[in-house]
Amino acid sequence: MEKFLCVQDFYEAAKSKLTKDSNGSWEYFEGIPDEGWALDQNRKAFKRYVIRPRILRDVSAINLTTTILGIPASIPIGVAPTSKQALFHPDGECGVARAAGRSGAIYVLSTLATASIEEVAAAAPKTRLWFQLYYQKDIEVNKDLLIRAEKSGYEAVVLTVDCQIPANRLGFKRKPWKLPEMQEQQVPEDMDPSMDWNVVKWIREQTKMKLILKGILTGEDAKLAVEHGVDAIIVSNHGGRQLDSVMPAIDVLPEVVASTKSSNVEVYLDGGITLGSDVFKALALGAKMVFIGRTALAGLTVGGEQGAAKVLEILTNELDKTMALAGVTDLGSNISSKFIQNYKPFLSSDY
Amino acid sequence: MEKFLCVQDFYEAAKSKLTKDSNGSWEYFEGIPDEGWALDQNRKAFKRYVIRPRILRDVSAINLTTTILGIPASIPIGVAPTSKQALFHPDGECGVARAAGRSGAIYVLSTLATASIEEVAAAAPKTRLWFQLYYQKDIEVNKDLLIRAEKSGYEAVVLTVDCQIPANRLGFKRKPWKLPEMQEQQVPEDMDPSMDWNVVKWIREQTKMKLILKGILTGEDAKLAVEHGVDAIIVSNHGGRQLDSVMPAIDVLPEVVASTKSSNVEVYLDGGITLGSDVFKALALGAKMVFIGRTALAGLTVGGEQGAAKVLEILTNELDKTMALAGVTDLGSNISSKFIQNYKPFLSSDY
Amino acid sequence: MEKFLCVQDFYEAAKSKLTKDSNGSWEYFEGIPDEGWALDQNRKAFKRYVIRPRILRDVSAINLTTTILGIPASIPIGVAPTSKQALFHPDGECGVARAAGRSGAIYVLSTLATASIEEVAAAAPKTRLWFQLYYQKDIEVNKDLLIRAEKSGYEAVVLTVDCQIPANRLGFKRKPWKLPEMQEQQVPEDMDPSMDWNVVKWIREQTKMKLILKGILTGEDAKLAVEHGVDAIIVSNHGGRQLDSVMPAIDVLPEVVASTKSSNVEVYLDGGITLGSDVFKALALGAKMVFIGRTALAGLTVGGEQGAAKVLEILTNELDKTMALAGVTDLGSNISSKFIQNYKPFLSSDY
Amino acid sequence: MEKFLCVQDFYEAAKSKLTKDSNGSWEYFEGIPDEGWALDQNRKAFKRYVIRPRILRDVSAINLTTTILGIPASIPIGVAPTSKQALFHPDGECGVARAAGRSGAIYVLSTLATASIEEVAAAAPKTRLWFQLYYQKDIEVNKDLLIRAEKSGYEAVVLTVDCQIPANRLGFKRKPWKLPEMQEQQVPEDMDPSMDWNVVKWIREQTKMKLILKGILTGEDAKLAVEHGVDAIIVSNHGGRQLDSVMPAIDVLPEVVASTKSSNVEVYLDGGITLGSDVFKALALGAKMVFIGRTALAGLTVGGEQGAAKVLEILTNELDKTMALAGVTDLGSNISSKFIQNYKPFLSSDY
Repeated sequence: MEKFLCVQDFYEAAKSKLTKDSNGSWEYFEGIPDEGWALDQNRKAFKRYVIRPRILRDVSAINLTTTILGIPASIPIGVAPTSKQALFHPDGECGVARAAGRSGAIYVLSTLATASIEEVAAAAPKTRLWFQLYYQKDIEVNKDLLIRAEKSGYEAVVLTVDCQIPANRLGFKRKPWKLPEMQEQQVPEDMDPSMDWNVVKWIREQTKMKLILKGILTGEDAKLAVEHGVDAIIVSNHGGRQLDSVMPAIDVLPEVVASTKSSNVEVYLDGGITLGSDVFKALALGAKMVFIGRTALAGLTVGGEQGAAKVLEILTNELDKTMALAGVTDLGSNISSKFIQNYKPFLSSDY
Repeated sequence: MEKFLCVQDFYEAAKSKLTKDSNGSWEYFEGIPDEGWALDQNRKAFKRYVIRPRILRDVSAINLTTTILGIPASIPIGVAPTSKQALFHPDGECGVARAAGRSGAIYVLSTLATASIEEVAAAAPKTRLWFQLYYQKDIEVNKDLLIRAEKSGYEAVVLTVDCQIPANRLGFKRKPWKLPEMQEQQVPEDMDPSMDWNVVKWIREQTKMKLILKGILTGEDAKLAVEHGVDAIIVSNHGGRQLDSVMPAIDVLPEVVASTKSSNVEVYLDGGITLGSDVFKALALGAKMVFIGRTALAGLTVGGEQGAAKVLEILTNELDKTMALAGVTDLGSNISSKFIQNYKPFLSSDY
Repeated sequence: MEKFLCVQDFYEAAKSKLTKDSNGSWEYFEGIPDEGWALDQNRKAFKRYVIRPRILRDVSAINLTTTILGIPASIPIGVAPTSKQALFHPDGECGVARAAGRSGAIYVLSTLATASIEEVAAAAPKTRLWFQLYYQKDIEVNKDLLIRAEKSGYEAVVLTVDCQIPANRLGFKRKPWKLPEMQEQQVPEDMDPSMDWNVVKWIREQTKMKLILKGILTGEDAKLAVEHGVDAIIVSNHGGRQLDSVMPAIDVLPEVVASTKSSNVEVYLDGGITLGSDVFKALALGAKMVFIGRTALAGLTVGGEQGAAKVLEILTNELDKTMALAGVTDLGSNISSKFIQNYKPFLSSDY
Repeated sequence: MEKFLCVQDFYEAAKSKLTKDSNGSWEYFEGIPDEGWALDQNRKAFKRYVIRPRILRDVSAINLTTTILGIPASIPIGVAPTSKQALFHPDGECGVARAAGRSGAIYVLSTLATASIEEVAAAAPKTRLWFQLYYQKDIEVNKDLLIRAEKSGYEAVVLTVDCQIPANRLGFKRKPWKLPEMQEQQVPEDMDPSMDWNVVKWIREQTKMKLILKGILTGEDAKLAVEHGVDAIIVSNHGGRQLDSVMPAIDVLPEVVASTKSSNVEVYLDGGITLGSDVFKALALGAKMVFIGRTALAGLTVGGEQGAAKVLEILTNELDKTMALAGVTDLGSNISSKFIQNYKPFLSSDY
């Protein structure tokens, strides 16, 4: 894996490997509805924010630590919940969770994992674990999942709020995914389309884990989330896998940050991160942490646990370099939107 | 037709089939003047409006019904008038009209149809039918058409106002269309270039059918239409088949909606619809219904009546999903421009 | 020439023919300095102005006549001065001048023509002729040209003001042009780089011909031109053949029109016209007439006098259709900037 | 070298030659971090500024002279410091310095040169020389360099402030550079990441050479530079070789010029210059001089000293022509931002 120098290297190798599979793993990896516009835009949108670097500051020591939900974290990068990780590599969820732990990244386990809550907890004892909940029609399933997660030491429940119905993912229909033998999905896909804000209250009553909403794309909903007492919000368009015609995640971030400013709710960003400078931009625009989904899976696909760890290492190093070159030494008040400039010129190659 | 999963699938198959024909059917299907700019822009313009989805709303029941001209309609999608449908499939107008009826869509029969007013009415007794009028030089022809349409149960006359002279469609000259034997055009192409607002008054005197103007592209003309007591307006640039250098239809919609706000005139949108999310955007921006032209013809071309029905089914399902994922359950006041954000970044593919 | 249906058809055929020549005729035709940016932009810029068509107006009679410098003209299109026309077809200047006359277009003869002032006047007795002056270092040459032009019935002198030094046209250096035997250039290229506003006064003293400045690209210079009593201004960037990094001609037009509003100075547009709708847009933005340069030469190259006439016929027909479809019947106060909307779709307001 | 007519010709030939080398010279030449966005944008950004040419001004004599740091200079173009010039041609730094002198351009010698301070001074006695300092961890190295430069007649020290840590240049890792035998780098790469504004004060105490900061990208830092009494600022993003996601240099220029307006600090621009019109634009926007880096190296690569001289000659001639065609005769108050217009339309071919 020595020749993998950037996230793009992993993406290319992952695509090359998965498109050769007969089990629909590439279609699942990509997972785009309609035209894949949101996925594409998630990445492009970062180009419209440029960094204003400051000079002649002592950058001999760069500090990437932060606190997330009151607990110190060594990097401001987490691994987003993604389902069926065994589709991409036998290491699956356990491998990625261990890789996250080695980097100091939080790992969010999906409801639709191919390893159980307890297996992952046992496999990655040093990793900060959160549990992502797809609220199911059968309330007993939800209860059971919350109890098991809390008991297994998961710190928080991440309720996904942008997935009450399945999206129109054509790739799945053209080439359905098929899990490898011996590795089954733990929970059936049976989300409750009637889920509303009462579910937030209900979860609060069921568990002492922190409560995070994932999939907010408007300031209005961010305000409602604050009023409902959640601990954090993940700005996300589900990696462009749900509604295709929505704003890129990074473009929504400022609106959500503004809407939650007077609260203690932390805001994280998910979607489109492929460079350390992307992480920097999200943090400068007010995110406390970013999440990577496909980016981590590209590492998993290429090299299992080692690959996922390498991807996190690359992003961390790139973030470190970006901070040094921007004249920023730590992630506190030191970094702010003063380091960002909107940049929306004409960029086509065919002037 | 199982493998046709989206409108784009139908377009590709239709193009592949028609370009093999020797009868100019593809040139007629495309029908672009000058450089085909307006057709291209009609579609691209939708990308500049993104949806602001709301979360944690009960979306277990989505209601697509609406009322059109005071009568309930099961979906807010109609089939626009397009001429010579027998060029594309023997099912022709009768087939598309039946397909519309199966989906609950209104069907608008063109003056330049290859089936008669009476034949279509007989073939599609359960379909809501409107009749499109190209106002002819010979006033007796106009009278006869109006009488026959009203007598056959057509609800409304749709007067096309952007086609007083034929456009500069080069494809027709390079490869003239030729109708299949046994299927002739009912009415010659002999539009009256002197048509003005007096024609609107004259039609009112001839018939009790509702009166709709199709082809308005300015707020000024929308106001005049209201003053002349029309029942509805179709914002349209004739699918990019007339004047090539005009605004995309969706971009004009807000201006027309604003100009008619204080009236009861309904506003519909025609042009560029290829996804359920396009329908959603038009409705959110104030359209009561949208029309599909080439999109329906792509279905007709590929699979006759079944193909047209399948296209309507796909759009309906996509609209249903879009509403659910946007947190919208019905088409009343529930849906508004608050769900839309202008998005005008750099969109070229080559960052 | 039956299969030539639009200007683009002529361009393609002309390029195909000239690039096969060994005499540098294509390089001369194209004639771009630096990167050819201005030429490319001259054409693209028209796409950013769209037409707002008005409906239900009697368009059975379209009137393309206008008055230019007080004399009736049958179309608002002229042929711009371009040099060495014999490079492209033996018909040369005489052929194009005759073609212009057949269409009712004004023809501007270049100083650097391959036919003499008198030859062209004799060959095209029914054509309105203007004479373009490259002000030469040798003042006697200038005097002689003015006297001969006036004597030969040329109505106006068009002083080119954007060409005091030759531009950096790399194509000429890579493949120098070579005129056909027997057809020589009348006047050597020996422009006076010290030319200033005194030259305008001097010309006024030498001749009773009308005086027009060609090559103005700022409102400031348009005002100076008015103050110096010129009769008309041609907004032009020399077809993108001089300074490469300048505004497209159509984008400068509104500024120049505004600067000359309170005067009687007529404003014409030169640069980028390839469609009848381009002509319409320029007229709606305030030009009294447009000029075509390479567009006419493409016709000349393909078919000599007949080709040039065909190009003018196509543009005239396209303009006629555009007016009808826009609801405009004549070129007086009937046409105005109300018919134009800026269309800069990918330009958000917060650039 | 007769057939090299523009900078682009040199770039193409240089790329063709270097990509055949096995010593990583192309990778070093290009030197892009991440995605090479900043390099690409540096060049494209110039297209968004167009020139407003003025007419009928006597341009028979164009004067390109200026004063730089109080001393007359024959052209407003300098050669930026770039390291390891022997990688591209045996003439190396000495050759480029001599070429600069022939054109009247200032030459800035890099700390990381493959020729010594004294060798270059001896080889190019007629060239105005400046010395670029990468502030090293070992303070004695810095002292030694400053003493030697001053003693050798270098006029100024150019402190690079955007390079405290090495950037993430993937090309170097994929294909490491290897200097030709017998030509070694003079100073090891051991920059001090703790460098801050105290270094500016320290340099002032060490030398009487003028002090220039290279790599400022914000108005805030420009103000600090003024407060610290520097003599000049070079606006630069290190040719897109350091932080990849920053503003193009030309886009930052106006902000820096505004921030230093009330001082005597001169502002220069570095980055993206490939045409004489680029030089003109930078000067009109307030730069006193521009620097070329890769552009000079392209000349060096193709033709050694002669090639570098030819590149400077081409740019000088292009600037001369641009000034004449813009109606500007000298570089004093004669040239200003009135000659520039922002031009930010949507121009992609896929409207």
